Parts: sequence; C-alpha cells; structure tokens
Amino acid sequence: MNKVGIIGYGITPFTREDQKIESVLLKSAKTLFQNNQNIKRNDIDAVLVSTNNNSKYLSPILSEMIGIQPKIAHSIESLCNSGTNSIVSAYSYIASGLADMVLVTGAERYDSPGQILQWDNSRGEFKHPIFWASIFAKSYKREYSISDEQLALVSVKNHKQAKKNPNALSDKTYSIQDVINSKKLTDDLRLLDCSRPCTGSASIILASAEMAKKITDLPIWITGIGQKTTSASFTKNTSFRFMESTRLAGQTALKMANKHTEDIDVAEIHDAFSVCEPMALESLGFTNNGNGMNMIKEIHDTDNFKINPRGGLIGSGHPLGATGISQTIEITQQLQSKADKRQVDDVQVGLVHNMSAAATSSTVLVLEK
Amino acid sequence: MNKVGIIGYGITPFTREDQKIESVLLKSAKTLFQNNQNIKRNDIDAVLVSTNNNSKYLSPILSEMIGIQPKIAHSIESLCNSGTNSIVSAYSYIASGLADMVLVTGAERYDSPGQILQWDNSRGEFKHPIFWASIFAKSYKREYSISDEQLALVSVKNHKQAKKNPNALSDKTYSIQDVINSKKLTDDLRLLDCSRPCTGSASIILASAEMAKKITDLPIWITGIGQKTTSASFTKNTSFRFMESTRLAGQTALKMANKHTEDIDVAEIHDAFSVCEPMALESLGFTNNGNGMNMIKEIHDTDNFKINPRGGLIGSGHPLGATGISQTIEITQQLQSKADKRQVDDVQVGLVHNMSAAATSSTVLVLEK
Repeated sequence: MNKVGIIGYGITPFTREDQKIESVLLKSAKTLFQNNQNIKRNDIDAVLVSTNNNSKYLSPILSEMIGIQPKIAHSIESLCNSGTNSIVSAYSYIASGLADMVLVTGAERYDSPGQILQWDNSRGEFKHPIFWASIFAKSYKREYSISDEQLALVSVKNHKQAKKNPNALSDKTYSIQDVINSKKLTDDLRLLDCSRPCTGSASIILASAEMAKKITDLPIWITGIGQKTTSASFTKNTSFRFMESTRLAGQTALKMANKHTEDIDVAEIHDAFSVCEPMALESLGFTNNGNGMNMIKEIHDTDNFKINPRGGLIGSGHPLGATGISQTIEITQQLQSKADKRQVDDVQVGLVHNMSAAATSSTVLVLEK
Repeated sequence: MNKVGIIGYGITPFTREDQKIESVLLKSAKTLFQNNQNIKRNDIDAVLVSTNNNSKYLSPILSEMIGIQPKIAHSIESLCNSGTNSIVSAYSYIASGLADMVLVTGAERYDSPGQILQWDNSRGEFKHPIFWASIFAKSYKREYSISDEQLALVSVKNHKQAKKNPNALSDKTYSIQDVINSKKLTDDLRLLDCSRPCTGSASIILASAEMAKKITDLPIWITGIGQKTTSASFTKNTSFRFMESTRLAGQTALKMANKHTEDIDVAEIHDAFSVCEPMALESLGFTNNGNGMNMIKEIHDTDNFKINPRGGLIGSGHPLGATGISQTIEITQQLQSKADKRQVDDVQVGLVHNMSAAATSSTVLVLEK
C-alpha cells in the first residue's frame, strides 16, 4: 500500500459573507496553488469536493476554474464530517494506486442545508442540532455533576484560542459570566455554547510518498484512519453522555498508527457544541469518563493549546463541508511548526476528530511528521 | 493491490412513481440481500450512496434501515456518472485495504435535481441537456451526412432490447416512423430520441478477492478503470461530434485491463440521447469516426444484443445516480450468463461507459469473469 502524505494546503477566513458556492470553493484552492507554486496542475489525478451545498457537478466546475482536467471528480457529502470522509477517500485513491495526487476542497455557505436534520423523525419537531446537543448536555451534566459555569469553560477556552487564528470567525474573548449571560437557547445550552455556521473554504493536497518527496521537505503522513457510523437517528445512540462512534473510530485510528492517546501532542476535537468537547475527549480515551472538564480546565489554566488550537468549531466557525479539512490543516501546520501564535511545543503526533449528526458518525485521523 | 470483484447485486423496476428517496434507496438494497443471503451485513465496511437528490446523510440512513454499521459512509455526486464514480471509489477502498466489502447503492426520483444545468452560463437560457444533445446531433449529422431517419434507429433498437428487460421503464417497441412522428423538441431531436428521468434504484456489492471467493463461485472482476473530466462547461468541448473525455477514459481502462475494443463482447453505452450512442462507440474506438450508425444498424439487423442489451438509457430509463450501477449490473449478468432473454453468446469481457453533462466527464470500466 502506498504511503500517503499531505503536501500542501490553502485556507481562507471564515465569514458570514453571502457568496456563491463556486466562488467560495475557488478561494482556498487558489490560495493553495499560490502557497505551493511547485505543484503542477497536470499532476493532479483527482479533485474531490466536500460540501452539503445542493449545487451539482462542483468538482468539474472547480477543476475548470482552477485549470485541472482530473481523472476522478465528484462531490462527497456526509453532513459535518464530509471533510474527513473526503480526505479518507483521497487517501484510498492514492494508497490503491489509482491516483498519485489528489486535491480535496471543502466549502460551505453560512446558509448551507444540512444544518437541519429533516430525516430524523425520532426528533419530532426538534430538528435543529441544538436539541440533540441539549439532551447530551443534560445527560452529561447530570451524570457527572457538571454545572453550567463549568461547561462554559469550553467556549471561553476556544474563543481565547481563536483569537490567535487569523481565519477564525470569532475575534472576541469571553468570560464564564459572558457565556452564562448569552442568550439561553434551551434548558441546557446558550448561544455561546454553540458553533456557528459560516461561509468558508479549505483545500488540501495529498500525494503518494514518491510524489510528496518531489514537492516538499515537510510532508505530513496520515498514519492512522478510523471511521464508524453507528446509526443515522439520534435516538439509536446507546448513550447520551458518551460517543460510541467516536470511541470505535479512535480505537481503529490509533491501532493503525500504532499509537496511544498519551502519544498525541495536539488534537482537533469536534466541538459543535461545548458539551461535545469533554464527551469526545473521554470517548477517545484522553481521560476518564466524567473527567473531560478537568482536563479542559488544566489546559485552559496553563495556556496550553493542545486541544483545539485554532479555536475549535466554537471559535473558528463551522462551515460544514470545510470543517474536517480545516481541522486537518491545523494539525498539519502544528506538525510543521508553522502554527504561529498557536504553536504547541515539540509536536510529533497529532489527531483529528470530526463527527456528524449527534455523533452517529465519526472520523479520527492520526497525522505524523 | 487487492483484486476487486463484484459479488452481488439488486435491482428493481424503473418507474415514474412518486416515492421518498429513502424508500427508493432501500428497495434495491433489500433485493440485493434477498438475492445474496450468504452476505453478512457485519462484513460490510463501507456504504456509498450515489445520488443527485438533495437529501443529506443518506448513507447512514440506508445503513440504519438495512442493519449495517459501516466504517465508511457518505454520498457521492457527479450528475449522470455518479454511479460509476461510486463504484470506482468502492474499488479504491478495497484495493487500498481500507475495506474488504463495500455496498454501493444508487437511487433517484423522477424529479431529481441535476437534470437542469444551472451552473453552465455558456448555455444561456438553454439549460436542459437536450440543448447540448441537439448541438451534438446537428454537428454529427452534418459532418457524416446522417439523416434523422438513420439516427432514429438508436431509439428503435434500444426500445426493442428494453422489451427483454423486466426492469425497463419502457415496455413498447417503435418503428423508425414512430420515432420521426414523436414530438419534435428541437430542430434535431424528438421525444423518442431522449432517455427519460425516472424513479429507480440499483445496488451492487464489491469485495476483495479473498472475501469474494467465500461468497460466490462467479465473482466478476473489475480489470480496467478509466475516468476523465475535461471541463464542466459544454462550450469547452473541443468537438461537438466526438467525446474527448470518453476517448481518454476508454484508452485508460482498456490499457489497464490489457484489452482492445475487439476483445469486448458486450457493452453498456451512455445513450442519454440517441446521438450519444454512435458518438460514444466512435470515441471508444469500436468503429471509425462516422461509422457508428452502420455498426448500430448491423447490430439491429442481426438481432445481436451486443450494445446496450438492457435497452440503454433510452429504453431502460435514466435514474441519474442509479444509471451507472444498473449498467454495471447488466454487464455482470451478461458475464455470469444470467441475462435471460438479453443474453449475448459467450461473453468473456464486457465494458461500461457512463458519462455526465455533455460528455465533459466520462467513466469506462472493463469487467471480466
């Protein structure tokens, strides 16, 4: 099996701008080629577009705009983890030998479909993701005696970290009291507990080891991949205070990379809502069940950027199809020591956790220098 | 690289029924498992959904309905060749070792989006595919002095062949005069020159050689794969009487399989409109430029089912996301000598040609026993 490396990326600010999806897509792809002028468009065998947008044929459209005539070209959708699904698909094209170099571009508009879950009738009228997140929050807080004030620290930390991310949607810091005083949306979650949909785009190029070495001295290798879909319906979750698909995807990825959680120096965690961060840390095995908020508090208090250095989804914004790709770019930058003010010391191994629809589906990637 | 085989399929009649996309999807997947009771759901590592439907998260929804908890689950869209894009993606997951067994289900409703090409401004108001097909027809007929009556034979042949296909949308045969008398939609094309959108679903299971041998004595191997996207816009085509993406995809697929067109015993050709069939046969190298209709006439006159045995898109109907999968199922059945009244004699090697959007993108597969 061919080894697969990340050899370039392009990312643009996440905003609330009203732009055509084609323009959004083009932005980060253009940035990628500006950043990596030694990547030849003719060498790109596949262009995968990650999006929830309803427009069709976006990969050929992007390809034509950017001057690529790929062999393989299509869009991939899996709600909020479309991005890592696309990266894993690119990996498989290269590992199988069908492609040597693959461009993956994720893009979304602030009003993207896929934010409302039309299909899950078990939710009744409560189709917005905040309703499952609230049930998670109620269940998690009750089980482990976590207060609203304690949980608010996720948002405080991630907004603080996003201040160091020039592409983040948020440019403000907040106190615990600010989070508590923000608009109460449900019994258990407030406005500042939520990530916000936004307009954004992120592009990444993967290549075989042979190709990678021609392009860059600093390829970042994908050494672990884990994916799991346990169901589509929220109510099929076996627990509301633990993420089973995340646990299984994490186990598979770490096993493939031959690593343990203690080996992970930096991680992107899918904090669509504040409660997701401690739950995911526990489900991935970074800490014991119920101890996620203690881990987050320690990270916050020591000003360590180990978890969600770019500010997570809460601080960076959540352009669905671009999220998993922007998470992967962050870990790539960390491993390349190019994360500027967000840089964590001595990063050897990083992890990406990206999930969909109340953690009914999860992807975990392990990246190494 | 792991060898990849087709080990099972399920297909249901193509209709004009008004059904939810989830129900349409489920139908052929259920049929697949009824047809192949020794395939265990737990062995399925990936579920790929091929569709142009705007509903999100369809792969986890199908997986939950059918009782699968896959690692990999997402939807794939590339307009009319979404189906073969999904099959090639499944191939790469298996060849790379990320999966041993992959379910690919394509489904579409009769009113699917993707029939109208919103993105191609070079078409002005002429966004319906019939307008590019008419320019192809005008250009092709003029160059090779083909009459409307001669071209009508594609529809006559494919409707005749569809009569032997129990799943076809059409149940009628037509004479040349019937085609000529059907409603004139543009200067160069009539109603019976067109394939019709419909409601339909097709499922296929691919597996590694090791897995395949456990399930069936008659796996069909994918030995050649070629894909090419030359552009997204119709007017970027270098010719209106030849399909460049089809030529390139065909060359790549035949080279990979180490075959020539003379080795192909049966082929599915993407006849979205009548003119596409002779153009594609020429672009693939089955016959010289301008000779496609002579080849089709010989096949028709000798009652040979070699080209589009199931009746092509014109006879079978065209449920966009399901089309490429149903084409692949037809060639699989032909290779397994299970094509009933459509069976071509002594089939050793078959070919699938599936394309999108005025042949701006093409997939070619070579299948063998």
